[in-house]
Amino acid sequence: MSAVICSPANKLIKEVASLKQKKYRDELGLFIAEGVRIVEECAASAWPVHICIYTETAAARERTRRVLDRLAAARCRLVAVPEAIYNKLSDTEQPQGIMAVLKKRQATLAQMLAPAGQVPLIVVLDGIQDPGNAGAIIRTADAAGCTGVIVVKGAADIYAGKTVRATMGSLFHLPVWEGVAPGELITALTAANVSILATSLQNADIYYHADLKRPVAVVLGNEGQGVGRELLDKADGCLTIPLVGDAESLNVAVAAGVILYEAVRQRATL
Amino acid sequence: MSAVICSPANKLIKEVASLKQKKYRDELGLFIAEGVRIVEECAASAWPVHICIYTETAAARERTRRVLDRLAAARCRLVAVPEAIYNKLSDTEQPQGIMAVLKKRQATLAQMLAPAGQVPLIVVLDGIQDPGNAGAIIRTADAAGCTGVIVVKGAADIYAGKTVRATMGSLFHLPVWEGVAPGELITALTAANVSILATSLQNADIYYHADLKRPVAVVLGNEGQGVGRELLDKADGCLTIPLVGDAESLNVAVAAGVILYEAVRQRATL
Repeated sequence: MSAVICSPANKLIKEVASLKQKKYRDELGLFIAEGVRIVEECAASAWPVHICIYTETAAARERTRRVLDRLAAARCRLVAVPEAIYNKLSDTEQPQGIMAVLKKRQATLAQMLAPAGQVPLIVVLDGIQDPGNAGAIIRTADAAGCTGVIVVKGAADIYAGKTVRATMGSLFHLPVWEGVAPGELITALTAANVSILATSLQNADIYYHADLKRPVAVVLGNEGQGVGRELLDKADGCLTIPLVGDAESLNVAVAAGVILYEAVRQRATL
Repeated sequence: MSAVICSPANKLIKEVASLKQKKYRDELGLFIAEGVRIVEECAASAWPVHICIYTETAAARERTRRVLDRLAAARCRLVAVPEAIYNKLSDTEQPQGIMAVLKKRQATLAQMLAPAGQVPLIVVLDGIQDPGNAGAIIRTADAAGCTGVIVVKGAADIYAGKTVRATMGSLFHLPVWEGVAPGELITALTAANVSILATSLQNADIYYHADLKRPVAVVLGNEGQGVGRELLDKADGCLTIPLVGDAESLNVAVAAGVILYEAVRQRATL
């Protein structure tokens, strides 16, 4: 199904334009993934593309054409728009002329518990504010073979354009449960026998001394304040990354990589 | 020494304004570190501050006042300017009204070889393009207790404003040798008995199987293309980080953290 829309007053165009704001993403249950690489990732994943918006200039490039053909075969609605309209919808500095509009999906904890017999390795984003950090953590969680991502209420919206792009497509590769209250998270993980390990600069074990072979959820906190009080108090343990030199802290996405890959190392040498 | 400059045509102001461009940073041998936190880091380090430029609004805040007092005590030249001039010099979206102008320094390999009896752990930036990544790698290298950073010719300029800020002050904590040609680097490290380990997605050992307790230089490559041919061919070994899930790669600063902290772990459990 293919159409051309030339009016900026068109209802669909106005709706897509509104998705730059979290309020409308929440209300409509939709979000945007922009750029040819990430649309390829959606098209290759099980996440159905609701609408794909593109420009004729972009469609003239072979790589874009291929992904449009693939989406058309999957009966996705394709909408061509003039550059001027595309640029209004776009959230990037150098628009590539192709974006997918997708329905938000909410994973359940059950999906993260034993996919393909894996021991659960869950990453929890608590109060992460920078969209680039949130996206990089999801990308890292995917690389490390995490079984799921949980986003605590109050963190950066993982469906914001910049975050989606920073995941480099990993958002489509693993179950994400978002908007969870700390109390609900603690109850659910405890009931599922998943140990909650909060990262902290104080009163914590060095992360490589912790047993990361058991089912664990690693909680990463706000860039300035760290993990919130409730999760810190009720966690089964705290992990710290030793600062050997003079740096006061690590970037939170780097910290996520260090701990999640220690889990990979421990699990590989079981 | 304190002065007030109100003319944008002033020679000093024009010189500082020119430092946004690499060409003039190279020509004058100067660079800018902007923001109250990073100026605090300079003031606390052994790196002398050449000039400090600030606004009266900023100086009215206690934290800025304290760092200005400290710089004055160290006989740094302080220059107050009107907001309009400061904003022209500034490279940030929300200027904090204080910046240090510093002389570039070039470290030698000798400084990285045995500081305080440590086994050398050097990080090499080869073709890293994103200033945020370059800065985050330097911050991570500092946290992991690296003995030095080497920047191969052609990588992002580590003295660009955004990179300096992304190091969070770590640029002032460890020796940096920049603008090195790959051949010169190989000759120098080999003569110093430091093993060169290049990161790579192919034909490489899993990083946690490598011996990182010996003197090593870990080479991180360009975000898209990876480590350059010459370094890849002449390295003593290649390291890879296994991708367990479906992500195609890791962010390069995250990769740096994973490998450098494996060195921390191995060295701690000697």
